[in-house]
Amino acid sequence: MTTLKNDRLLRALLRQPVDVTPVWMMRQAGRYLPEYRATRARAGSFLDLCKNPELACEVTLQPLERFPLDAAILFSDILTIPDAMGLGLYFTEGEGPRFEWPVRDEAAVVALGVPDPEEDLGYVMGAVRIIRRELGGRVPLIGFSGSPWTLATYMVEGGGTKNFARVKGMMFDRPDLMHQLLGKVADAIVTYLNGQVAAGAQALMIFDTWGGVLTPSDYRAFSLAYMTRIVAGLTREREGRKVPVILFTKGGAQRLGEMADSGCDALGVDWTMELSEARERVGDRVALQGNLDPCILYASPKRIREGVGRVLESYGTGPGHVFNLGHGIHPDVDPEHAAALVEAVHDLSPVYHV
Amino acid sequence: MTTLKNDRLLRALLRQPVDVTPVWMMRQAGRYLPEYRATRARAGSFLDLCKNPELACEVTLQPLERFPLDAAILFSDILTIPDAMGLGLYFTEGEGPRFEWPVRDEAAVVALGVPDPEEDLGYVMGAVRIIRRELGGRVPLIGFSGSPWTLATYMVEGGGTKNFARVKGMMFDRPDLMHQLLGKVADAIVTYLNGQVAAGAQALMIFDTWGGVLTPSDYRAFSLAYMTRIVAGLTREREGRKVPVILFTKGGAQRLGEMADSGCDALGVDWTMELSEARERVGDRVALQGNLDPCILYASPKRIREGVGRVLESYGTGPGHVFNLGHGIHPDVDPEHAAALVEAVHDLSPVYHV
Repeated sequence: MTTLKNDRLLRALLRQPVDVTPVWMMRQAGRYLPEYRATRARAGSFLDLCKNPELACEVTLQPLERFPLDAAILFSDILTIPDAMGLGLYFTEGEGPRFEWPVRDEAAVVALGVPDPEEDLGYVMGAVRIIRRELGGRVPLIGFSGSPWTLATYMVEGGGTKNFARVKGMMFDRPDLMHQLLGKVADAIVTYLNGQVAAGAQALMIFDTWGGVLTPSDYRAFSLAYMTRIVAGLTREREGRKVPVILFTKGGAQRLGEMADSGCDALGVDWTMELSEARERVGDRVALQGNLDPCILYASPKRIREGVGRVLESYGTGPGHVFNLGHGIHPDVDPEHAAALVEAVHDLSPVYHV
Repeated sequence: MTTLKNDRLLRALLRQPVDVTPVWMMRQAGRYLPEYRATRARAGSFLDLCKNPELACEVTLQPLERFPLDAAILFSDILTIPDAMGLGLYFTEGEGPRFEWPVRDEAAVVALGVPDPEEDLGYVMGAVRIIRRELGGRVPLIGFSGSPWTLATYMVEGGGTKNFARVKGMMFDRPDLMHQLLGKVADAIVTYLNGQVAAGAQALMIFDTWGGVLTPSDYRAFSLAYMTRIVAGLTREREGRKVPVILFTKGGAQRLGEMADSGCDALGVDWTMELSEARERVGDRVALQGNLDPCILYASPKRIREGVGRVLESYGTGPGHVFNLGHGIHPDVDPEHAAALVEAVHDLSPVYHV
């Protein structure tokens, strides 16, 4: 393996000193880039793109060609696991992901198996290997998965949902069955993420997109407990370095304190909490990643720079900050505005690392 | 005016002792009731229903015929104000509310006037008067409006939005213009709510549906500041009683502490925070309204009763709790499950008021 030329991300995630604050953007390989849209058109559907390792590598690297980002993140989808479990993932225009065979009863939960990363999700492992090779050690590669609760919402609902009627119905009426489902999904995620690490991922992120729709106690029981179990099962070293793990619960700012005890290394923070307050809550237990309101990228580069400055100032001095948006970059953002963000982070952050 | 036979709601909102915890449900007059769907079909469109005072009264009273609720809430829509400002409200099937003439530039903001409640929104004032007469003092009537920020999101976007691109774009790039817009909308809301009180509303609620999408400092400047200004401008007494004001920011649990200093009497709480914690944050400054996860109504009556019990227990003993869902009741909920909720609140709460 090549030596890592820029290891700011890994250092910051482990709360080690860095020269400037590392920066990457959630969904940095995505629709706001014309070159992404071109590759996507070439691939066919979104799912075709995910399942083609060469093209997944191509779009993963695209934002790095444009911006001096400090990390690459695997281009993939969180629903690859339930797809490999046999639920039949497909995408509909305008309505997003759907499953042909949702998990609605005990028999369906019992029937679920744990997919083998190389056999059943070989296209993801292949993409990780190719991306590592093509990166040539420029920056680290982040692997990822959805959280068990988040995957369960899609698996039970059969797709995206606004009300979470079915999945919460099952959680409230059949907590035993929901725990059985989440346990299986957690096992699958551990195997999947360890497969990504074996293939070359140098950091891992778990996206708990829907943990924020739960009450505090339901969050603890049905989301955080399973993420904690996953963290305990992960390969945490590769090529002589620790593989940091980031948890991110969207809408979960209120949960940061307990999330910091999950065994993870870093927490993603959305923009609903100042980083100064988040830092108070987690102390020196974990690093923090975030948390610029992604909508500021609709404003002028001057405003973007001011916004970046406020986030850096809120975190303050010392190690443990990875700059990011508080959520994925929106598809209709001007790429020049993303450039302004990355430039501002590198320009304005050295003063916090002296 | 007739004497109020059941004043639990008003007493609880003012933190005065009650015998049982009062309960009502956000969107209690709504699609989950077959009788609502029948009236709506008779009215024509949703907007036709809102603009017909007799039918608006009919649907307002429907849930009270079914359940021993402790309050009625005016059936209306938060977008009546921008409609009366000339934006041309209409509803599209599946896509929700739209405006023909969104507010996108300085000229559009300057052109906005403050509607006169009786002249421009007479159908709302008429509905309030008829509902008061038909209620005959059974329970108090709650009037309401959207918050300035929430109305501004629809006015600038031209309808509902997921990303808040335009409205946040304006907020970041032209904060001066956004403040001008919010100031005008706040003036309109004060006039509108005072009109409702003059017509008979006995409590008021401000729905800040989209305040939760803002950073802490943007929330303070662009949402809370204007709600505070509104509260200061409201008629606070009617028929020799105080007219309590409730603020509710969806996704705003983290803001409860500062919201409690707005001059309002009570705060709505969504289900992302335990009421015990919310109560610690606000102390004796305000009452709290909430906060059952509305999805528990998809579960069995037994689970609903357990859920109600946990919310009551979390608030604990003493005055100042109005039971409610943490968000509007979902349209596909079984009315029998709503009945189970109301019954459980009245059954289980006396022990907290001894």
